[in-house]
Amino acid sequence: MKVLSIEWISNTETGVMPGFIRMIDQTKLPVELVYLDTTDIKVVWEAIKTLRVRGAPAIGVAAAMGLAAALQDSKSSGEKLLHEAEKHADYLATSRPTAVNLFWALERMKKVARENSGLSPEVFKERMVREAIAIRDEDAAMCRAIGEHGVKLIKDGQTVLTHCNAGALAVAEYGSGLAPIYAAQARGMKVRVFADETRPLLQGARLTAWELMQAGIDVTLICDNTAAVVMKEGRIDLVMVGSDRIAANGDAANKIGSYGVARLARAHGIPMYFLAPTSTIDMSIPSGDCIPIEERGADEVTCGFGRRTAPEGVKVYSPAFDVTPAEFITAIVTEKGIAYPPFGEKLQEWML
Amino acid sequence: MKVLSIEWISNTETGVMPGFIRMIDQTKLPVELVYLDTTDIKVVWEAIKTLRVRGAPAIGVAAAMGLAAALQDSKSSGEKLLHEAEKHADYLATSRPTAVNLFWALERMKKVARENSGLSPEVFKERMVREAIAIRDEDAAMCRAIGEHGVKLIKDGQTVLTHCNAGALAVAEYGSGLAPIYAAQARGMKVRVFADETRPLLQGARLTAWELMQAGIDVTLICDNTAAVVMKEGRIDLVMVGSDRIAANGDAANKIGSYGVARLARAHGIPMYFLAPTSTIDMSIPSGDCIPIEERGADEVTCGFGRRTAPEGVKVYSPAFDVTPAEFITAIVTEKGIAYPPFGEKLQEWML
Repeated sequence: MKVLSIEWISNTETGVMPGFIRMIDQTKLPVELVYLDTTDIKVVWEAIKTLRVRGAPAIGVAAAMGLAAALQDSKSSGEKLLHEAEKHADYLATSRPTAVNLFWALERMKKVARENSGLSPEVFKERMVREAIAIRDEDAAMCRAIGEHGVKLIKDGQTVLTHCNAGALAVAEYGSGLAPIYAAQARGMKVRVFADETRPLLQGARLTAWELMQAGIDVTLICDNTAAVVMKEGRIDLVMVGSDRIAANGDAANKIGSYGVARLARAHGIPMYFLAPTSTIDMSIPSGDCIPIEERGADEVTCGFGRRTAPEGVKVYSPAFDVTPAEFITAIVTEKGIAYPPFGEKLQEWML
Repeated sequence: MKVLSIEWISNTETGVMPGFIRMIDQTKLPVELVYLDTTDIKVVWEAIKTLRVRGAPAIGVAAAMGLAAALQDSKSSGEKLLHEAEKHADYLATSRPTAVNLFWALERMKKVARENSGLSPEVFKERMVREAIAIRDEDAAMCRAIGEHGVKLIKDGQTVLTHCNAGALAVAEYGSGLAPIYAAQARGMKVRVFADETRPLLQGARLTAWELMQAGIDVTLICDNTAAVVMKEGRIDLVMVGSDRIAANGDAANKIGSYGVARLARAHGIPMYFLAPTSTIDMSIPSGDCIPIEERGADEVTCGFGRRTAPEGVKVYSPAFDVTPAEFITAIVTEKGIAYPPFGEKLQEWML
């Protein structure tokens, strides 16, 4: 099965309207696959807020589609309809205060709304739906491009270790870190994956293992502390992970544990790849030292999954991300291609 | 509070009889500290079976005390009493089929029973209780000796990273990997500890963090995948772990994840110490390649926190232990002293 985190489904054969949003309710994974079908902006807001849809690109798509769906059902026209669009966008922007793709997608939708506010309500509404679909499709195309570049780094029959979830569930389709796996499968290559469970939130166990199984890809789940052993046993040919932020020198922030995997990969002579869209690259940050690292609450570690597993009141250190210095990165892959160290020049060229 | 996993408590001021066993019910940790007081051999059998008492040395002590307690309440004498002792020992030996200390402790008790079967029932019973207490005390003394040697490797104010639970709860007292921490505390040194939570069974979170907090030692809990980051951040001065089996060349098996910690320690220039009694050294095994590694069931990884956190039917690779090659071990510490590489000669000398 192809995993589509979120899509617009039209009720007609030919057009895009009337239609509705279908998203995978990720809070139900990995136990059940439940789709949430809606045209209700409040349901979309709640879905973003409560992580039914998660991953920055997927959240952006959800917000854009939520706005388009709300307008679709409006009785207004002209300035009043434009005003509604802006009000809805402002409302959706309150769902997750720090998700940059959310604001970006809503700004883009508002711009299209302003540009088309002179058109008939029916045409205006369709433009909005088509823009939301375009945001989704562009994200999918970008991820596919990451996959097309990244797959050149994999040989038939090889085994990839991954960490966290940089897969289809986090984006519109394909994923970033996992995109080359899907590209390899599409080429008929046989690729195996070892997935770190990724404490404390277990995105590897809950999401990566689930989506790879859905896609029919051979995946084996391991505890994070077992990555070193599978490398030592010669089971891993390469490591592929996503990235949350890449500095101008190539230092890459990603889910906590990625740095350890990178050091272990280097120690075992295994290549370590970071894969992400160029929107992840922040040329204003000279090095990883300047990337702020969010610290998470103790509860995720001490009672994350239904029962207390550490003493009440124990001190916990739980950074959400870590930074892998560029010297431990074999290559960075974006939709524009593959960069090898030293990364500075290539990243700059991409970002021009 | 001093953590005593298991002890014999006498009801009299002067002698050892009549008395009872007091053990910490480790299945209730870290939520509650519950003591199990008993003289009932069936309760002891069940406590070993269901891991209320765990850690090879502590299990050996529990079995010996369970046997002594059962005999204490017997009405028999002479050959009949000896026969009861043997029957009880055979029964207790069925509680955990692979725990070598269990069999060793019960054989030692049976030998004492045979040697003393000619004595009066009262004296015989007291000999048995005293032997069980001696097994406990010898284990405590051995752990204290490990601590006395190991503490020489710690400077005042330093921070130690540990993995799994090689602490007081696993033995009679002090622990192996943690023994130097307790020795440092006894000397008035200020030592901080970072404890890996140690997936899948979370012994670091449930047991190590708990016992160090009880002892008033500054402990911070981290996810296993955060060990690399705390090393990179310069927070760790040295690593101390226990060992389940040490080969003649110094290769050391320990809880899964220890090997990764050792490689990361080396990558960050941090010393990595393995601490264990000499009974852990197996000179019949030339190298770690010959140490068989038990594979654990998938459920511990997929639903270990009280609810399912990975897809039904996902493949899981979950070795219980890993082997750290001697080249990544800075020193091995036993009750006999400290061995530096190459380890072969020193281990042989200790085992003569």
